[in-house]
Amino acid sequence: MNYIEQLQQLLSREQVTTNEVLRTQHGKDESYHEPHLPDVVVFPKTAEEVSKIVILANDQRIPVVPFGLGTSLEGHVIPYKGGISLDLSMMNAVLEVRPDDFLVKVQPGVTRSQLNKELKKYGLFFSVDPGADATLGGMAATNASGTTSVRYGIMRDQVRDLEVVLANGDVIHTGGLAAKSSSGYHLNGLMVGSEGTLGVITELTLRVYGIPEKIIAGRATFETIQQAVDAVVSLKQAGIPMARIELVDKRSIEQVNFASDTNFPETPTLFLEFHGNEAGLKSDVIFATELLNDNGCIELAFEQDERARNQLWELRHNLAYTYIHSAPGKKLMSTDVVVPINSLPDAIQNSREKIESMEIDAGIVGHVGDGNYHILLMVDMESQEEIARAKELNEHVVEYALSLGGTCTGEHGVGLGKAKYQQQEHGAAYIWMKEIKRLLDPNNIMNPGKIFID
Amino acid sequence: MNYIEQLQQLLSREQVTTNEVLRTQHGKDESYHEPHLPDVVVFPKTAEEVSKIVILANDQRIPVVPFGLGTSLEGHVIPYKGGISLDLSMMNAVLEVRPDDFLVKVQPGVTRSQLNKELKKYGLFFSVDPGADATLGGMAATNASGTTSVRYGIMRDQVRDLEVVLANGDVIHTGGLAAKSSSGYHLNGLMVGSEGTLGVITELTLRVYGIPEKIIAGRATFETIQQAVDAVVSLKQAGIPMARIELVDKRSIEQVNFASDTNFPETPTLFLEFHGNEAGLKSDVIFATELLNDNGCIELAFEQDERARNQLWELRHNLAYTYIHSAPGKKLMSTDVVVPINSLPDAIQNSREKIESMEIDAGIVGHVGDGNYHILLMVDMESQEEIARAKELNEHVVEYALSLGGTCTGEHGVGLGKAKYQQQEHGAAYIWMKEIKRLLDPNNIMNPGKIFID
Ligand SMILES: Cc1cc2nc3c(=O)[nH]c(=O)nc-3n(C[C@H](O)[C@H](O)[C@H](O)COP(=O)(O)OP(=O)(O)OC[C@H]3O[C@@H](n4cnc5c(N)ncnc54)[C@H](O)[C@@H]3O)c2cc1C
Ligand SMILES: Cc1cc2nc3c(=O)[nH]c(=O)nc-3n(C[C@H](O)[C@H](O)[C@H](O)COP(=O)(O)OP(=O)(O)OC[C@H]3O[C@@H](n4cnc5c(N)ncnc54)[C@H](O)[C@@H]3O)c2cc1C
Repeated sequence: MNYIEQLQQLLSREQVTTNEVLRTQHGKDESYHEPHLPDVVVFPKTAEEVSKIVILANDQRIPVVPFGLGTSLEGHVIPYKGGISLDLSMMNAVLEVRPDDFLVKVQPGVTRSQLNKELKKYGLFFSVDPGADATLGGMAATNASGTTSVRYGIMRDQVRDLEVVLANGDVIHTGGLAAKSSSGYHLNGLMVGSEGTLGVITELTLRVYGIPEKIIAGRATFETIQQAVDAVVSLKQAGIPMARIELVDKRSIEQVNFASDTNFPETPTLFLEFHGNEAGLKSDVIFATELLNDNGCIELAFEQDERARNQLWELRHNLAYTYIHSAPGKKLMSTDVVVPINSLPDAIQNSREKIESMEIDAGIVGHVGDGNYHILLMVDMESQEEIARAKELNEHVVEYALSLGGTCTGEHGVGLGKAKYQQQEHGAAYIWMKEIKRLLDPNNIMNPGKIFID
Repeated sequence: MNYIEQLQQLLSREQVTTNEVLRTQHGKDESYHEPHLPDVVVFPKTAEEVSKIVILANDQRIPVVPFGLGTSLEGHVIPYKGGISLDLSMMNAVLEVRPDDFLVKVQPGVTRSQLNKELKKYGLFFSVDPGADATLGGMAATNASGTTSVRYGIMRDQVRDLEVVLANGDVIHTGGLAAKSSSGYHLNGLMVGSEGTLGVITELTLRVYGIPEKIIAGRATFETIQQAVDAVVSLKQAGIPMARIELVDKRSIEQVNFASDTNFPETPTLFLEFHGNEAGLKSDVIFATELLNDNGCIELAFEQDERARNQLWELRHNLAYTYIHSAPGKKLMSTDVVVPINSLPDAIQNSREKIESMEIDAGIVGHVGDGNYHILLMVDMESQEEIARAKELNEHVVEYALSLGGTCTGEHGVGLGKAKYQQQEHGAAYIWMKEIKRLLDPNNIMNPGKIFID
């Protein structure tokens, strides 16, 4: 009996499939990385089932690649060594909401939009909002962040506890319900961002927040992108507690107008948001307005109305998709560096010069309050030259960020695409990361070939 | 040549001492744990020297116990197996302030008060403020927190990068300068809170904050401690962004009045602080006042003046010391549990009942906004009975917190005192923590016997 038949015996029939369409879906992600099919796609329903699957795979040295929604951008979910694509979509229950403790317990396949729909009933929200609807398991595994991370933190900051199935089948909990702890080693932190290379997340206890009393969103337009970025640095350095500061460059505003029925001025723009009490916000907005004007803001438009605000952020969230949809057949390449905030203007200028000198059609957007920005461009996968040029640009941007003490990936994670920068970024620590991988997964079955170049 | 002579050859004479007084100072902490002398006290000046010392110790299986200021409370720095007490006090330079990036780079022996003195020149502050002046190295090693953690986070939240010397002498960096990163495994998180059991921290890059535009501090008094705690839960649940919410019970207020020239009403009290802009604060304070009154607040006194504020927080910070100074010859025992915020009133009531039923003289104070509180009591180290009773109380409080999903230690760390709860709190994960320890320190030379019961 081969291992797929053994899996079919362990689980029910519909949980194990070699169907071509499903394998194809699980053999790619949303990015420009080469697809590769898994042997089989498996849909577990419980941690116990995950444990059984992993034990079988470990015994027979079969790769196991966890799969959330497959929206990651660095080849994370692509099973380059075949084996099992472990799809968590059947584990999609919100298990418990503890509104008085500001905690929620979910299964890994719950999506952020599903969770927020549930939380809204309690006047709560979950803060991390990547520009794709994603699963909480996938978001924890990549240490995702989003537009509100400048205020509420990244995925790692929200995780109180994870249930994780390790490569040997052990089921562990990495934390607890306490708001802080100095007890034992911080396994929460280690597992968040481990991209399925150390284990499978089967349950998450997450921090949630009360919906703020008052929210004001705004759009600030500038003549040049450098003015917009300088304004961001001013806002941050003045200590205004911005809830969101997003840069959308001219090229990307054109993209928004093209894809939606909007008519925004086609010029570099900051999308902003303020959360707080009425009086405090008013004062923050006045101060921010001053700083924006000092930095050459042409026009400032505020939206207090919930519908208008939601629309604004929907546009921002869907931005990368407008690039994708406008270039059928092509695939997305997105850089993802972070630099120290004071170096952001230089970094963006350097990136722009490279884009221009290479004559590439690309947009620049980003969670600039964290010093994080993305260059978005669409790549024709049939053209080796286009792929090579995209890689050259990425390489240039990464090298520049690393030279400033920044990181090659602020939120998308390493996957395959950023594996080659790990040694350079982490130096001697890289060897110890590899050792930790070897300790927890000695047979290298958990998402092999990701994060580390074998 | 014995290893101490070898150390004397590696370093200069005054950096290696077997002086009895210095060994005694390095053989105890501020708590009720049994002292034990190191063989030798060593004062390195550079990471390179630390590396040499550790390599020598590793070769000869000599324990190495890092020592900051020795203010930890669970026997952390006590070298129960002899060996080297590695005192970092000669590595006490603030290496770099990057005010525009809100970053600072320091050596591990810099104290928080020293750092804040330096930062004040730039209008900045470092947020974590344990109730003892402590070194940044020691604070990172214990994952310390303090009165402002409810707003600004704990030690782990401030660490961007650590330089760490591992047991084999490797010098690694665990992070970088980026405000967020999804690159590689999160070694920052693993090293923070590892209490010298995984390596020696020789440099820290930390996040700092701008001093807020406006600060208002206050004292709110209540008839009963339960009313005070209920008020805390209300403030938290209403989402008022408090910068500090500290509980000081009647017994502790008496202690403050006794030790200082204050004349505070001797009744359960909350020490509060609000940070923000003028208008926002005003509105927060009005809302908070309402909630405090709803929960039976008797008197509410606000201090806007910087001197009065500083005095208030100095009293709070020195509180544990007033217990220590009022009981010469005795030593401090402090519990340190955290429970989910909504369970805080029950937990404190349960603790009080136990204290009363055991007829123990103890105060309750704490960083209650995080669900963290301490029972402080002075123990006569000559009396086995008093020691046993202190341990019984601690045990009761820990069991109760763990039954609620809380933690045995919110900020003091495990050391020797909380080692016995690790298995119970972490379950199957405990084995993997031990495995990580074995991986990074196979000869168990780094602070042996701490966190784990060998
Ligand atoms: C248009 C677009 C915009 C985006 N914008 C952002 C953004 O703003 N911020 C951001 O952070 N990301 C962004 N991303 C990337 C992506 O959305 C995130 O990485 C997201 O966290 C992936 O979630 P997923 O559920 O799709 O995970 P997948 O892509 O399915 O998996 C991601 C990784 O996690 C592992 N994994 C998944 N589930 C588990 C589990 N239960 N246990 C262990 N490992 C698991 C996988 O093996 C893989 O390595 C964007 C992507 C797109 C396409
Ligand atoms: C009165 C009083 C009040 C306190 N209040 C608080 C409080 O509010 N919050 C709080 O968190 N704590 C509190 N503490 C505990 C204590 O102050 C903290 O644990 C503090 O972080 C210890 O710092 P230290 O420099 O004294 O470290 P030490 O006590 O010298 O060392 C602590 C641990 O860290 C290790 N260590 C020290 N330096 C390094 C290094 N460079 N590299 C690796 N390991 C190292 C040691 O081996 C030891 O395990 C209090 C203590 C007292 C006495």
